[in-house]
Amino acid sequence: MASETKELKWVGKRNIRPDGIGKVTGRDKFGADYSLPGMLVGKVLRSPHANANIKSIKTDKAKALAGVKAIVTGADFPELAPGEDLIGEGMLSMRDLGHNCIARERAMYEGHAVAAVAAISVEIAEAALGLIEVDYETLPHVIDVDEAMRDDAPLVNPEIFTDGVEPAPEKPSNIAKRVEFGLGDIDAGFAKADIVVEESYTTKPVHQGYIEPHACLASVDQDGQTTVWSSSQGHFMVRGYSATILGWDLSEVRVIPAEIGGGFGGKTVVYPEPLAMQLSKQAGRPVKMVMTRQEVFIGSGPTSGGSLTVKVGVTKDGTIVAADAEIKLQAGPFGGSPIQPACMCALSCYDIENVRIVGYDVAVNRPRVAAYRAPGSPIAAFGVESTMDLVARELGMDPIEFRLKNAAREGTQAPYGPRFPVIGNVEQLQAVQSHPNTKVALGENQGRGVASGFWFNIGGDSSATVNVNEDGTVVLATGSPDIGGSRTSMAAMAAEVLGIDYDRVRPIVADTSSVGYTFLTGGSRVTFSTGMATVQACQEAVRELCDRAAKVWEVEPDQVVWDDGHARPASANVGDFEPMSLAQIAADTTRTGGPIGGRASITAQGAGAGFGTHVCDVEVDRETGKVTVLRYTVSQDVGCAISPDYVEGQLQGGAAQGIGWALNEEYVYDAEGHMENPGFLDYRIPVASDLPMIDTVVVEVANPIHPYGVRGVGEVPICPPLAAVANAVHDAIGIRMTDLPLSPPKVLAAIDGER
Amino acid sequence: MASETKELKWVGKRNIRPDGIGKVTGRDKFGADYSLPGMLVGKVLRSPHANANIKSIKTDKAKALAGVKAIVTGADFPELAPGEDLIGEGMLSMRDLGHNCIARERAMYEGHAVAAVAAISVEIAEAALGLIEVDYETLPHVIDVDEAMRDDAPLVNPEIFTDGVEPAPEKPSNIAKRVEFGLGDIDAGFAKADIVVEESYTTKPVHQGYIEPHACLASVDQDGQTTVWSSSQGHFMVRGYSATILGWDLSEVRVIPAEIGGGFGGKTVVYPEPLAMQLSKQAGRPVKMVMTRQEVFIGSGPTSGGSLTVKVGVTKDGTIVAADAEIKLQAGPFGGSPIQPACMCALSCYDIENVRIVGYDVAVNRPRVAAYRAPGSPIAAFGVESTMDLVARELGMDPIEFRLKNAAREGTQAPYGPRFPVIGNVEQLQAVQSHPNTKVALGENQGRGVASGFWFNIGGDSSATVNVNEDGTVVLATGSPDIGGSRTSMAAMAAEVLGIDYDRVRPIVADTSSVGYTFLTGGSRVTFSTGMATVQACQEAVRELCDRAAKVWEVEPDQVVWDDGHARPASANVGDFEPMSLAQIAADTTRTGGPIGGRASITAQGAGAGFGTHVCDVEVDRETGKVTVLRYTVSQDVGCAISPDYVEGQLQGGAAQGIGWALNEEYVYDAEGHMENPGFLDYRIPVASDLPMIDTVVVEVANPIHPYGVRGVGEVPICPPLAAVANAVHDAIGIRMTDLPLSPPKVLAAIDGER
Repeated sequence: MASETKELKWVGKRNIRPDGIGKVTGRDKFGADYSLPGMLVGKVLRSPHANANIKSIKTDKAKALAGVKAIVTGADFPELAPGEDLIGEGMLSMRDLGHNCIARERAMYEGHAVAAVAAISVEIAEAALGLIEVDYETLPHVIDVDEAMRDDAPLVNPEIFTDGVEPAPEKPSNIAKRVEFGLGDIDAGFAKADIVVEESYTTKPVHQGYIEPHACLASVDQDGQTTVWSSSQGHFMVRGYSATILGWDLSEVRVIPAEIGGGFGGKTVVYPEPLAMQLSKQAGRPVKMVMTRQEVFIGSGPTSGGSLTVKVGVTKDGTIVAADAEIKLQAGPFGGSPIQPACMCALSCYDIENVRIVGYDVAVNRPRVAAYRAPGSPIAAFGVESTMDLVARELGMDPIEFRLKNAAREGTQAPYGPRFPVIGNVEQLQAVQSHPNTKVALGENQGRGVASGFWFNIGGDSSATVNVNEDGTVVLATGSPDIGGSRTSMAAMAAEVLGIDYDRVRPIVADTSSVGYTFLTGGSRVTFSTGMATVQACQEAVRELCDRAAKVWEVEPDQVVWDDGHARPASANVGDFEPMSLAQIAADTTRTGGPIGGRASITAQGAGAGFGTHVCDVEVDRETGKVTVLRYTVSQDVGCAISPDYVEGQLQGGAAQGIGWALNEEYVYDAEGHMENPGFLDYRIPVASDLPMIDTVVVEVANPIHPYGVRGVGEVPICPPLAAVANAVHDAIGIRMTDLPLSPPKVLAAIDGER
Repeated sequence: MASETKELKWVGKRNIRPDGIGKVTGRDKFGADYSLPGMLVGKVLRSPHANANIKSIKTDKAKALAGVKAIVTGADFPELAPGEDLIGEGMLSMRDLGHNCIARERAMYEGHAVAAVAAISVEIAEAALGLIEVDYETLPHVIDVDEAMRDDAPLVNPEIFTDGVEPAPEKPSNIAKRVEFGLGDIDAGFAKADIVVEESYTTKPVHQGYIEPHACLASVDQDGQTTVWSSSQGHFMVRGYSATILGWDLSEVRVIPAEIGGGFGGKTVVYPEPLAMQLSKQAGRPVKMVMTRQEVFIGSGPTSGGSLTVKVGVTKDGTIVAADAEIKLQAGPFGGSPIQPACMCALSCYDIENVRIVGYDVAVNRPRVAAYRAPGSPIAAFGVESTMDLVARELGMDPIEFRLKNAAREGTQAPYGPRFPVIGNVEQLQAVQSHPNTKVALGENQGRGVASGFWFNIGGDSSATVNVNEDGTVVLATGSPDIGGSRTSMAAMAAEVLGIDYDRVRPIVADTSSVGYTFLTGGSRVTFSTGMATVQACQEAVRELCDRAAKVWEVEPDQVVWDDGHARPASANVGDFEPMSLAQIAADTTRTGGPIGGRASITAQGAGAGFGTHVCDVEVDRETGKVTVLRYTVSQDVGCAISPDYVEGQLQGGAAQGIGWALNEEYVYDAEGHMENPGFLDYRIPVASDLPMIDTVVVEVANPIHPYGVRGVGEVPICPPLAAVANAVHDAIGIRMTDLPLSPPKVLAAIDGER
C-alpha cells in the first residue's frame, strides 16, 4: 500500500469534517426532524409493573376517541418461532426482540411496551393511552443479579433454560447462559503463587445517555412499500430487524438514515420502528414516534449491572501465575447480556499461563440490556484492574511497571483463544509511563490510579460505492451511519487512494436501497471494515481509470500505473505520454467506455486488538465524600489514527463516560421495581464542569491487515476508567471501594467507617 | 442470452408497476411536494418585452420589503466563456443555458427571467417583484422563422455567427447553423423522375404540455453543500447543468429525483434550479420554486415552429429516385433548434439513391426551444409524409404499398450515414396494412391518411447497481427517472436474469450521490441503455452467486452455472449437490465472503432504429371546419416490448400529442411578441373526449445488440400524426392543408376558398 512507500497527504491529517457545518448550524436532520403531510403521532403505553401477566387489553374506548387512527398490541405482530429467528452477525433472537418491542402475554419490566396508538396529535394519542384498559396480574419480580441467581428467585421468563451447561437443564431458571474460557491449569497456577489476592465487586446498570432519544418516521403505502427515516447505528439493522419482526420482505422496506445524536451501542436494536410501521400500515398514513427521556431510560436498553469476583496469584518478582474470574451480568428479561465479550476481554491485557473465566448471563425484571461501548468489558475491567491494583500494592510495584511486566504481546495466547499478532500493548503502556501527568506530585487527599482496558475490535460486512463525477470530483457512498466522524475518515482514505484533494471527495451515508449491505456502526468496526471497503472500491475505480488511459494511449492496461492522482506510463518504454489526471479522464468517459466508479462489498476480517491504559488523579473531599477528577490521561494503541481529531475525541468521550459510570451513574429502583431516577436531573451523567481536560496519547502500532493500519478506537477507552477512578480513590483515602458508583454518600460512608 | 434459449417469465409480461399505488393514491412526491423547515418561496421577474436591452436593475426597494430574504440577477452568476462551456452528451452550451435561466445584458423574449426573489411567502415575493425597477431599452423583434432569415430582420442575438458554412461569416445573423446531409446526385436523380412533386409547409411552435410545472426545492448549507429536490428527466443533468452555471463543484450538489408529471423532452434542461440554489445560498435558507402554467408556456422550452419545402421525384412504377428537403426551424434566441435530428430523420424511412437535406437553425425572439419527443422529426415528417401522400395520389398507388415499395430495410444507407442493420420497417408497414381498421369503409366528408415516422433512438451513459438483501429479495438502483414505467421494465429484466420473482425485486431511482452517472431519460434510451446496465449488473451478481456456491461446494467457480434462480453443478461430474437458491445463498453471505451485488456503468451503443406508421380516419364538419378523429391505428417496431402495457401507452400518448399538434395546438403571438394564449383554456391540447381509442400494433423485430432486443419506443409515435391527420383531411375534403394546426377556422377558410 501507499502507506509504506510514500508520505500520506490526507490520512492522519486534521481534515475538516464534511458534516460539520450542518451540525453546528442545526441544518442536519436527526430522527425527530422529518415530517410528512398527513403525519400522525405515535405513542406507547408502557407497563407500570416490573413483572405481570397481561390477561387482556381492551382498546375499544381508545379507538372510539376522535382523532385516533390506529392502535396496535402484541397480537398485531406475528409470533416468531424460537430458534428460527436468529439474524444478524450477532445472531440476535428476533422473537425476543419483537417481544421487547411490544409485550405479548407478559410485561416483564416497568416500561415494557404493551400497546401503541397513532393519532392526529400528541394530546389525543396520550389521552387514548389513558383509555386503553389492560388487565394485569402482577407477579413477583427480581432486579438484582445475585438475587436472580438464587434457586428461590422469582422466575423472570419461563422461556429461559440455561445455555452452555451439561446436561441441558430440564426446568427454566433466570440463568440464560454460562460461558467459560481458560488456559493452563488454574489450581497448579495458584499453587505456584507467593501472593494471592481475591476481591468481589458490583456495578450498577448505567445508560449510554445519548443526547437524542430514539425517533423515527414510518410511511407505509397501501401496497406495503415502506419508507422509514430513523436515527440508529445501522439502517440495514433497522430494515432487517423491523421487517423480520413484522414478517415483511426486506425489499419492501427502505430505511433512510437520519443523523444520529449519539448511540454508544444503545441504537443497535429497534424500539419504536416496528410499532410505527405497523401503525402506519393500519392507519394508511405516516406515523412519527419520538421517545421521551423517561421512555429512553425505562424503555430502551442500558447496559448490565454486574457482580464479579477476581482472584490473582503472583510470584514475588511480580509475575502473574494464575487468574480466576467469575462474572455475572444482568440481561433484562430475555438473557442477552454481554457476558461473552466481558469474559473475552477480562484478562486479555495480560500474558498469564493459567486462567479461568466463568460468566453468567442472568435474566432480571429490568429493561432488555443493549450494547454500551465495549459491551461487558468495562465491568470485567473494573474487577480485574482493581484487583491488579491491589496486587501491585501488595508487591510494592509501580502499577504501570507491573502491567508492563505481565503485558500481553505478540504471540501471547488470549484466554478466548487466538494468539495475538502484532499488538501495541507494551507501546501504549510505555507511552503513558513517560507522560508528564504521571510525574505530577500529589497533595493531601489526592490519589493516582492506573488501569488498563481491552477490546478485540470487530470486522464484518461493509459496502462502499465510489462514483467519479464528470468534473473529476467524487462521491463516496457507504452504509455506515456517521457517529464519530467516519465521513471524514472515509473521504481521507478515498482521497489518498485516488490521489485527489480531500475536499474533492463527497462522502455520504446512503440508504438501504442505494448501497450494499453494511452491518451496524459499532464494535469499533467502521473505520476498519467500511474503510477497507472504501479502499477496495477506490482501487477498483483506479484500475478503471488506468484502463481508460491505456485505451486513449493505445497501450496495454498493465502498462499504465496510477500515481499521485494521474495515470502514467509504467515505464519509459511504454511511450512518451503526458500523464492524465483523474479530472481529465473523468471529462471524457463517454468516449472511453462510460462512467467510472467502483464498488466493494466485503466481510472484513482481521480487526486488530486494541489496548489502552488510563491514569487518573483525584482529590477526595473528606467532608462530603465528593471525588474530583484532577487530571486524566488516556493512552491507547489505535493502529492508525486516520482522523486524529476524532480519535482523540473518542478517547476523551470514552473516558468521560467511564468516569460517569465510576462516580455517579446508576439506575435506582424502588421495592416495586420502578426506576426512581429516569431523567438527567436525577440520573447524573458528567457535565463539562465535572471533568478536567482529558489528555490523550495516541499510539500507532499498525494493524497489518488494514491498508492504513487501522485497529478501531471507540470501545477501549471506556474500559479502564471504572477501575482507574477506584484505584485513585484508594490511593487518596486508603480505602478499597468495590461497589460502583463511588458517589459522595458511599465514599463518605466508607471514610466514616474507617474514622 | 436467456431470451434465445428459454421462455421468458417476466420480460414481455404485463407486470404491475411498483410505483402504481403511490401514483394513484397521491402518496408519491412530485417536484412541488417537498418542504423543509424555514423554507422560502422563490419567484421570478420576467421580461415583458420580446427584445430589450437591460440598462439597469434596481433592487433596493424590493430588498427593503419585510420578509424578502434574497434577490438575484444575472450579475450574481459567473459569466462562462463561449467554447469552454459545452457539457453533456448533447454538448449543450452552458453559457447560453445560463443566460436563458437569467438574462444578463439583454432580455430576448417575453418571459425571459431577469431577476428572482426569495421571501417568506408567495405574496411578499410577488410584491417584491413589483418593486424591482428594470430599465429596458426595447428593440425590434422577430418571431417567424422565415422572417428571421431575411437580411433586414432584427438581429436577435449578436453572439450568433452561422455555424456550418464556408467561409465562416464575418457578421452575426439569426442563422445559427446550417446542416446538410445527402446521398448520390440529386440533380441526376430528379432527371430520372417521371413525376416530381414539390410542396412547402409550415408548423407552429407547440408545447409539450406536461401536467406538472417545473418545480424544485434547493437547500444550500453555509459551506456550500447543496441538496436539490427536483422534477426532471435527469437528476444528473440537473446537477451537472446547475453546478456548471453556478461554477460549483459537482460533488457539492446532491440532486434527489422527485417523481415527474410528464416531460416529453421539456424537462431535459434547468430553469428554476440554478436560481433557487443561488437564492438559497444567499438567504441561508431552503428555497422552493414552482412555475405557474403561464410561466411554463412563456418561460420554459416548447419545440420549434418550422418552415420546410420537400420535393420528391418518382418513376412511373412508384420508385422514388430523388428527394430534396429544406428545413428551417426556430430556436429561440440562442440557436439550438433540433435541426440536426430533423434532417437525420426526414427521409430515413425510405431507400432512396439520391437525397439532399439542408437544414437551418434560426434564432427568434421566442423562448429557447427544448426537446419534444423525437425533436425535429415530427416537423420533418409533416413535410415529407404530406409530400409522399401527394406522390402516391399522383401515382394512384395505395399509400402503404407506396411506402413498402420504397421502404428502408436492412442494408439501406440512411441519409445521415450508417447502413441500417436489422430493422423492422417493412414488418411494421405490413402489420398495419393487415389491421382491420384499414378496411373500414368511409362515409361522406370522411378521409383516411397514412404517414410513417422514424427515430434513430439513442444509447449513452447509464449505471445500475443491484444489491441482494439478506432474505433473498433484491434492490435495483438506477439513475433514470421513471417517466413511462421504466421501474417495471428494469425489475422485469432483473428478475429474468436473476431467476427470481418480479415482486422480489424492488427498483428504485437513486439520487446523484447513490448511483453512477446516468444520462437523462429521453431519446428513447432508458429501456435500452439503463436496461443493458441493469442486465450487466445482475449478471455480475449472478457470477458472484455462482462463486459462493462453488465456495460452499468446494469446486471451481466455472463448475457452477446459474439456472432458474439456482446455482447448480455445471455437469453431473462436478458432484451431487443440491441446487442452491438465491435466497439460500443470500442468507449465508457473511460466511462466504460478504454481501452480494453488482454494478455496471456503461456507454451503451447500438440503439436500434425505430419505424412506425399511423393510419388516421377523420370526419370534417364542412359547416364549422372541425376535424374529428374517428379511428386511429399506430403500428411500430419496438424491438421488444419489455412491458407491453407501457409500450402501448407510449404509442397512444405519442399519437395523442401528435394529433393535438396537427389539429389545435399553437403559440399565438401579438404584434409585440407577446404570447396570447399561455394557459390550457386557450392553448388547446386534446382531452379524452377529443380522441377515439387509439389502436396499437406492437411489432417486435429484435435489436440484436440488446439482450432482450429493445430498440426504444417513445419518440417514433409522435412523428407520423401531423401528416397522417393532414393526409386524412385531404382525403376527406380534397384539399391539401400545408399550415398547421388544422384548426376549425383554417379548415373552414380552406373549404370556403374552394366553394
